[in-house]
Amino acid sequence: MAKAKRYRLAEIVERFGGELVGDGHIPISGVATLESATREQIAFLAHGKYRKQLEATEAGAVILGHSDRGLTDIPRIACDDPYLFFAKVSALFNPPVAPKSGVHPAATIEDGTQVPASASIGAGAYIGRGVSLGNGVVIGPGCCLGDGVVIGADSRLHARVTIYAGCRLGKRVEVHSGVVIGADGFGLAMEQGRWRKIPQVGNVIIGDDVEIGANSCIDRGALDDTVVEEGVKIDNLVQIGHNVRIGAHTAIAGCTGIAGSTRIGQYCKIGGAASIVGHLDIADHVIILAAAVVTKSIRKPGTYSGHPAEDSRDWALHTANLRRLSAGRGLPQNMNNRLSLREKKA
Amino acid sequence: MAKAKRYRLAEIVERFGGELVGDGHIPISGVATLESATREQIAFLAHGKYRKQLEATEAGAVILGHSDRGLTDIPRIACDDPYLFFAKVSALFNPPVAPKSGVHPAATIEDGTQVPASASIGAGAYIGRGVSLGNGVVIGPGCCLGDGVVIGADSRLHARVTIYAGCRLGKRVEVHSGVVIGADGFGLAMEQGRWRKIPQVGNVIIGDDVEIGANSCIDRGALDDTVVEEGVKIDNLVQIGHNVRIGAHTAIAGCTGIAGSTRIGQYCKIGGAASIVGHLDIADHVIILAAAVVTKSIRKPGTYSGHPAEDSRDWALHTANLRRLSAGRGLPQNMNNRLSLREKKA
Amino acid sequence: MAKAKRYRLAEIVERFGGELVGDGHIPISGVATLESATREQIAFLAHGKYRKQLEATEAGAVILGHSDRGLTDIPRIACDDPYLFFAKVSALFNPPVAPKSGVHPAATIEDGTQVPASASIGAGAYIGRGVSLGNGVVIGPGCCLGDGVVIGADSRLHARVTIYAGCRLGKRVEVHSGVVIGADGFGLAMEQGRWRKIPQVGNVIIGDDVEIGANSCIDRGALDDTVVEEGVKIDNLVQIGHNVRIGAHTAIAGCTGIAGSTRIGQYCKIGGAASIVGHLDIADHVIILAAAVVTKSIRKPGTYSGHPAEDSRDWALHTANLRRLSAGRGLPQNMNNRLSLREKKA
Repeated sequence: MAKAKRYRLAEIVERFGGELVGDGHIPISGVATLESATREQIAFLAHGKYRKQLEATEAGAVILGHSDRGLTDIPRIACDDPYLFFAKVSALFNPPVAPKSGVHPAATIEDGTQVPASASIGAGAYIGRGVSLGNGVVIGPGCCLGDGVVIGADSRLHARVTIYAGCRLGKRVEVHSGVVIGADGFGLAMEQGRWRKIPQVGNVIIGDDVEIGANSCIDRGALDDTVVEEGVKIDNLVQIGHNVRIGAHTAIAGCTGIAGSTRIGQYCKIGGAASIVGHLDIADHVIILAAAVVTKSIRKPGTYSGHPAEDSRDWALHTANLRRLSAGRGLPQNMNNRLSLREKKA
Repeated sequence: MAKAKRYRLAEIVERFGGELVGDGHIPISGVATLESATREQIAFLAHGKYRKQLEATEAGAVILGHSDRGLTDIPRIACDDPYLFFAKVSALFNPPVAPKSGVHPAATIEDGTQVPASASIGAGAYIGRGVSLGNGVVIGPGCCLGDGVVIGADSRLHARVTIYAGCRLGKRVEVHSGVVIGADGFGLAMEQGRWRKIPQVGNVIIGDDVEIGANSCIDRGALDDTVVEEGVKIDNLVQIGHNVRIGAHTAIAGCTGIAGSTRIGQYCKIGGAASIVGHLDIADHVIILAAAVVTKSIRKPGTYSGHPAEDSRDWALHTANLRRLSAGRGLPQNMNNRLSLREKKA
Repeated sequence: MAKAKRYRLAEIVERFGGELVGDGHIPISGVATLESATREQIAFLAHGKYRKQLEATEAGAVILGHSDRGLTDIPRIACDDPYLFFAKVSALFNPPVAPKSGVHPAATIEDGTQVPASASIGAGAYIGRGVSLGNGVVIGPGCCLGDGVVIGADSRLHARVTIYAGCRLGKRVEVHSGVVIGADGFGLAMEQGRWRKIPQVGNVIIGDDVEIGANSCIDRGALDDTVVEEGVKIDNLVQIGHNVRIGAHTAIAGCTGIAGSTRIGQYCKIGGAASIVGHLDIADHVIILAAAVVTKSIRKPGTYSGHPAEDSRDWALHTANLRRLSAGRGLPQNMNNRLSLREKKA
């Protein structure tokens, strides 16, 4: 990230809204945490429980919620969502730095592929035949793109990404190092004691504004395509099996695995190291907590956890009650009131 | 995958067997799902429960089980195992496309390594000294092979695979992008407050017809070798520790980890995201379900799941009974009859 | 690993201590397991329970504990810690083989980066601007180092490692193939139905003598740095989120995920496939067993396991008691005595 220019606190409020409290003339040259901020930096208070750090901070200014505005005398911006506000301010001071456009002499571009003048192709990158690259595309060093791959405008592949033949990425997609898109799905049939491979002839289709974390894998479909809809955010070391569909704006934390043909709804949040077995349907707006093992379809929005996964309140209750029962203590008196409707009906 | 030629339905039956029902003259040019098939494509019905899709399909022909032959009037092939039959038909229409033979000018081949005329070495590949490559081998762009590596005939490494020095792959092995074979096992001894590394001087030996999914890792042995026997199929993001031995024709789904020195039998099926601790013995024909945590050796064929793993029927019963007990409901009357023999004896 | 010279058994004792029992003149040319050792190799007995293998071994000499010295007549070295002793002997016979120094002609070094004469840069490696490389550094083929990266003396990156811009590694760090250091942390804020990315502007700082296994990922910090202290050992396919701090000499086994902002103490041992959620504090000397799901901070040294993780004795007891309760058998009589203090107080 390159160093950006300075802004006065009042200029930041002009740009992004919020309420200025205190001296708007102070100059800000960057963002930092409450603990490490210096006089020219702006920090943020995500939650009132961090007020101790707020008291000790040397930050020149602070972003906080309206209800926390009285917690400090430092010049500050009171707003509805300090974390979101901070995200915008941080982006202002830390604009992404794109490499220079042009094709590195140590890159290989096969015949039938045109590179737009605005694109950047890194050293050692290999780009197959008939690849389509949008304007402003950045292909990092060591990337390998198979024949017929399509990369939409302003997408960026960091170093050492593999895209197998025929897969298509939308616009403004960011793919981190080590990602593999379009490897064969795990499709096998047993024949007289030997596995026979099912050809994996679908593709992977990635929508606009998707981000994919380091060393994650998205397999190509067996017949139809594997689809990641627009705005989906995927963390590191995530496995997405063949013919999975991930609904728009769903976020998937690291080490999660989603087995083949499962469909995840829109605006879901899937915690780290979750396991979701194949051929399930997960509704929109479902939250799956870390390490949950999802073995059945989830038809209703809500928060789920456990092994096997269930309503997360029930899982918490059952694990607590197991400890009580195992210790020879009875169940709590009011326990039935705490079971979710779903569980009580069972 | 390249476009293949057309076959009449009767020709497909001639090739692969099965019983032709209806017009054998119709031309077929590819395979597809029931939902997306068009008039010149053949689909398959894996199970009678998908009959709704069968009713709506526009496929020109269908592969189905003998007992489902009456479910449609579409020209069809009735057979014992529709999924396996479909696998063969799909392979007929989607033969693997190998890159042209030859060494890409942007590849590096060190001294003492001969490349057969029938082999293909991709751009940016690095091949160390004294590497042995069989006929028809394909080394994708960006692969790195250490000194003395052996790759058997007709094996294919997709882009960006690493094979450390001395490791040996059999014939017809397929390795997907990002795989690392032969990195050091995790062997450490504590000495006065500091970890001392145990040199990892064994190799990795991979049998014929093995497939390894994207970004999986197979560590070299500490002293003896890590061994993956013939016909083993490994999905993406799987970790296989040092000195593990995987028996022939075992299949391992994605995100599974197998710790050092564990031995897995032949014809096992290991579900996604399973964890198997070190120094265990798993018998032949064992099925381990998704996300199981295997902490003890498994001596008998069967299906296992849970955390810790046990007979999968017991695990299902115990988790169900925990919910009943936690809700203040008693155990079901006939529960003892449902416990496995193993559990009742305990 | 290259072949090393021979040593007489007495020479090994002179070098590393221990008590020589039997003929010290026999020549030793390597290390092996009890099962595979030949007459010129030395094996080790980690535990008396392997005495059967000891009886059958053809090893020329054996390393064993003082209390096991009477189990064999083979020339032997009795010592306090046979495994550690073996580690030293193995290192004697298997010194690491560094590639020749120099820059491979197929590597790319950008302006402003000096390569010491003692360093080795592999084919296809890409090294950005202003990178600092210490003496004796080895950068394997296909590695990609962003601008401003710092690599301390005698560190080694195996093939195909990515280090994003600005990250810093200490001395004698060993990084295995496929590792990604410094990719963006998973930081997102929701704004009117779309995820807005939080710029990840911290770095990753890796201390001296750290080892990182194949395909593991360590994300850069959001504002402050992600820190891995000296002597930490990380296995394969491990995910370390942004702003995590791993204390010195902690060992982390494969497939483990540590979510953002969690702090792990010194000298912890974290089992394979463990999941540790974000924003936790784990004390020094904590042992977390395989597949544990850690959802709360751990303030005391001890051994933890389960889902959710608790004192591992409690977890073992609760899972055993669930089986008893589920089978309609009562709790064991003396069970309360077996509960940990922590649990009984609850």
